[in-house]
Amino acid sequence: MGEFDLIARYFKRPPRQAVLGVGDDCALLAAQPGMHLALSTDALVEGRHFLSTVDPVRLGHKALAVNLSDLAACGAQPRAFMLSLALPRIDEAWLSGFAQGLWALADAYSCDLIGGDTTQGPLTINITVLGDVPVGQALLRSGAQSGDDIYVSGTLGDARVALEVFRGQLSVPETVLEASRLRMEQPVPRVALGIALRGVASAAADISDGLIGDLGHILTASQCGADLQAEWALPLLACAPALNLSPAQQLAFILSGGDDYELVFTASPDRRDAVQAAARASETCVTRIGTVRAGEGVRVLDAKGHALTQRFTSFDHFA
Amino acid sequence: MGEFDLIARYFKRPPRQAVLGVGDDCALLAAQPGMHLALSTDALVEGRHFLSTVDPVRLGHKALAVNLSDLAACGAQPRAFMLSLALPRIDEAWLSGFAQGLWALADAYSCDLIGGDTTQGPLTINITVLGDVPVGQALLRSGAQSGDDIYVSGTLGDARVALEVFRGQLSVPETVLEASRLRMEQPVPRVALGIALRGVASAAADISDGLIGDLGHILTASQCGADLQAEWALPLLACAPALNLSPAQQLAFILSGGDDYELVFTASPDRRDAVQAAARASETCVTRIGTVRAGEGVRVLDAKGHALTQRFTSFDHFA
Repeated sequence: MGEFDLIARYFKRPPRQAVLGVGDDCALLAAQPGMHLALSTDALVEGRHFLSTVDPVRLGHKALAVNLSDLAACGAQPRAFMLSLALPRIDEAWLSGFAQGLWALADAYSCDLIGGDTTQGPLTINITVLGDVPVGQALLRSGAQSGDDIYVSGTLGDARVALEVFRGQLSVPETVLEASRLRMEQPVPRVALGIALRGVASAAADISDGLIGDLGHILTASQCGADLQAEWALPLLACAPALNLSPAQQLAFILSGGDDYELVFTASPDRRDAVQAAARASETCVTRIGTVRAGEGVRVLDAKGHALTQRFTSFDHFA
Repeated sequence: MGEFDLIARYFKRPPRQAVLGVGDDCALLAAQPGMHLALSTDALVEGRHFLSTVDPVRLGHKALAVNLSDLAACGAQPRAFMLSLALPRIDEAWLSGFAQGLWALADAYSCDLIGGDTTQGPLTINITVLGDVPVGQALLRSGAQSGDDIYVSGTLGDARVALEVFRGQLSVPETVLEASRLRMEQPVPRVALGIALRGVASAAADISDGLIGDLGHILTASQCGADLQAEWALPLLACAPALNLSPAQQLAFILSGGDDYELVFTASPDRRDAVQAAARASETCVTRIGTVRAGEGVRVLDAKGHALTQRFTSFDHFA
């Protein structure tokens, strides 16, 4: 099977929204009146972002999910994506599984695969995703203001638990590993929440490199600092009750875990009802964990309001 | 230097056309009234598409040029691009050169770098490019009709000469190698020609995998065949006069060379004046080399109209 047969077999379907999909030099997309186009791109490299042993169905899901997560952080509705695949060899079983996971998620969002590239090389998956957001309603990192509440969606740190088990740094019960591994390998993009937060959140980002790092991007862009309440954040590690971790260890997973693909966002305290309404409308749990303040950096406070001295860092792809 | 410093130093500039560029979860692009958005993506993998010894300035140029070439084949005006880089390590000299070559070409087309991704991994450059084309005027592969003329821009096969020298299969004078190498390492996308051919060409594609292969895409999409005149095509190998190649060898370079990034296009014979006007307007040489016919496949005819028996193939990234 050559390059073009591979595309025809696994990656070519008539687009439902795009004017022209896979198979020409370019894809064509019609603009939606009153909308801005939101674009993001994310690559997954074998050995860096996933293990060679990962189920290809889950990998196909994750490759698209991490990109949809960026659209979610912007409040954008997914429309289409481009897929660039470097493959060491043509492995039909792998391709079939990968395509299955990819299409299942794409179909769930009516998101068209409109183009791409396939070449031989070390296994690398690069997706560029496109979405729509009404002009002026995109959630940006730069809108947080001193006094705003800080929220996160879902739970945090569980994906990191699986990573530490695979690294041999942690031992957990089999059922906990399965649940953590699912969080790592099949993240759920918070697209519905992002859309529901249009006009409600003052700033948002998705959490891919750990809460501290990605909240840090909001704070840098908004020229603010933040106080997080450790007591409010501690329940966020879903698997904690099954493990024997100290509060400090739990906080490290929660604040610096990585691979969470939840949203961190800010909103004015007078929008608390609107935030809860957005959470209900999108069937997504959100938790208030702190406050934006003047200054810079993130302080993590204990129940008495004292700053913890423990250092929490973010994930750096070159560290 | 970490991931974010790297982006800030080399790849972050205020966008000139986009609403929002590098630095948030998504970039934002405003739609142009009456336009379709044209999108394409192309990856370059070290060892497959370029040698590790290539000048990074030229590589930065080429990574964008091969993508702009797809927009050219569609008749689209470049607007913006996304850059995804997997790097084995942070090498500032390399990054500085790569960025220089990339920005020089981006600036020449006022094409904004609006987002991307940087990660550690085997050296892979993935670009997704976006352009505008008036609704209904995109050049597609599917529009060729029996009786149409077939044209190519520029010259063909010179890049392949350099590749064969590097492979040790061919020996050429130093000046020829330099010229061929420039064709391989710094291709010129035919953007102005593609735009000038809107409403003139009936079908078009860019030549990345060799004329036979890429003309083949037009023919498959248009359900036609083609006759090429070997005598008309032979002058296309610019470096031929300096080499001692048989006509059959010259034809092999011209028809199956790869890495040319010229356009192959078709037009009705009553549009010959319009094709020449488009060539003049875009300051690009175009050569008529054959005719679209009913049937399928490409026949290469000698001066007496006999089909050559020599086989010409296209480049397959998994062959």
